[in-house]
Amino acid sequence: MISVILLGAGNVGTHLYKAFSSSDAVTVTQWYNRNRTSISSYANEVEITDSLTEIKNADVYIMAISDDDIAQFSSDLPFTNRLVVHTSGSVAMHDIDKKNKIGVFYPLQTFSKDAEIDFTEVPICIEVYEKENLKILKDLAKATGCKPHKITTEQRQTLHLAAVFVNNFTNQLYRIGHEICETKNIEFEILHPLIEETAKKIQNMSPFMAQTGPAKRNDKKTIKRQLKLIEKEEHEAIYKMLTSSIKKTHGVKNYRPRKGKAN
Amino acid sequence: MISVILLGAGNVGTHLYKAFSSSDAVTVTQWYNRNRTSISSYANEVEITDSLTEIKNADVYIMAISDDDIAQFSSDLPFTNRLVVHTSGSVAMHDIDKKNKIGVFYPLQTFSKDAEIDFTEVPICIEVYEKENLKILKDLAKATGCKPHKITTEQRQTLHLAAVFVNNFTNQLYRIGHEICETKNIEFEILHPLIEETAKKIQNMSPFMAQTGPAKRNDKKTIKRQLKLIEKEEHEAIYKMLTSSIKKTHGVKNYRPRKGKAN
Repeated sequence: MISVILLGAGNVGTHLYKAFSSSDAVTVTQWYNRNRTSISSYANEVEITDSLTEIKNADVYIMAISDDDIAQFSSDLPFTNRLVVHTSGSVAMHDIDKKNKIGVFYPLQTFSKDAEIDFTEVPICIEVYEKENLKILKDLAKATGCKPHKITTEQRQTLHLAAVFVNNFTNQLYRIGHEICETKNIEFEILHPLIEETAKKIQNMSPFMAQTGPAKRNDKKTIKRQLKLIEKEEHEAIYKMLTSSIKKTHGVKNYRPRKGKAN
Repeated sequence: MISVILLGAGNVGTHLYKAFSSSDAVTVTQWYNRNRTSISSYANEVEITDSLTEIKNADVYIMAISDDDIAQFSSDLPFTNRLVVHTSGSVAMHDIDKKNKIGVFYPLQTFSKDAEIDFTEVPICIEVYEKENLKILKDLAKATGCKPHKITTEQRQTLHLAAVFVNNFTNQLYRIGHEICETKNIEFEILHPLIEETAKKIQNMSPFMAQTGPAKRNDKKTIKRQLKLIEKEEHEAIYKMLTSSIKKTHGVKNYRPRKGKAN
């Protein structure tokens, strides 16, 4: 049985709590949050606290807090020589105060308070400073049904960058699709199956192979017609940039090269 | 029983053939393609032809051909006063020669030869010139388990534009994620669950509500660190543009306004 103390109750912290508390191989010894009220509804199932001095002993301490708070918070911890990890995609492991054993336990997924997550599908990216702490973090990931991936700091930060493209930026394209539909009183829901299929397709083929559409076909007529249809300058700029990017990727001739260094 | 003659055997034609031939309420009377060889493997289950003069009678003729060929091909058809529809998202219905009854049967989905499609999930956007032809196209959509949506030409073209954003452009972001992973020897597959969840999330909440990440949080440190990590100028430009778009959508102060007309 792995004992865990969760520090923080944002989206990641809350989803981790749910995943850990439903695992037979993990016990959440305590859940700390600086604002006690936001976790008070869990008080009947787990010990909650808003005081660092009350923090007990556990195998792993997981800081699920803002990136900017990690360094200071880890210094404020009133104990030493225990395993303390953060859950951030981009903060360096060495930002954690070295009075404790340090590591990273980064779940590569998008967490919203209201969306249930199937945790068995979440890859957990793991880093440790001392090799001997690798096993317990791997076991912790596996105990929640997740797949652990041992990676370097640089790989984690690169993954986080790639995640911004495939998650945040993709979601913004959904948002633009939604806006475009609204201008003509079309229900955005008509696009749901297409969105799902686009994501599903690349589970079995590379995004390069999966590409379709006017940019890849270099269908100038459609591109011209669509640019005319666009009402917002911001959408037009994004349309042009991504059309040019697709043309480049697929070797379409006569794409307009962008100024600056070659790439 | 609705009889259909399919004209064309690209991705859309082939997927339509499979959907129709597996429906009890539809019979594919003939499948025409100018290149007979590409459909010869179906010759034992459906009558195939490469000659327009051999084309038989049917309730609906579906042109699943290139956008640019629709006008000419519809003029070349050696019959009149029958129901002829195209499957394009962007070509005007009136591009079809009016010697026949005209309409549109646009399946809003991404079709690749190698990806199987659950056709029951595909919205079919329908337009007709004469109202009396609406019912048969609706029935045809329903016969394959699809949901028919009667829309206007402008709405269809707007949907097609929105589809380019949520499908082709999204897929290009997947491609960039793939490229970024490759530079650091990371398996792109680690991002698959995130990609699926991003698409799944907006089936139940709006993309506006679903947004997360450094741009929405206006997390300047992470944005700066990620911009440093990016190796390709093209990726940098896309990162900056979509970050600015997210900031604008979510009312983050101090986004850098773009020059030109207000939007």
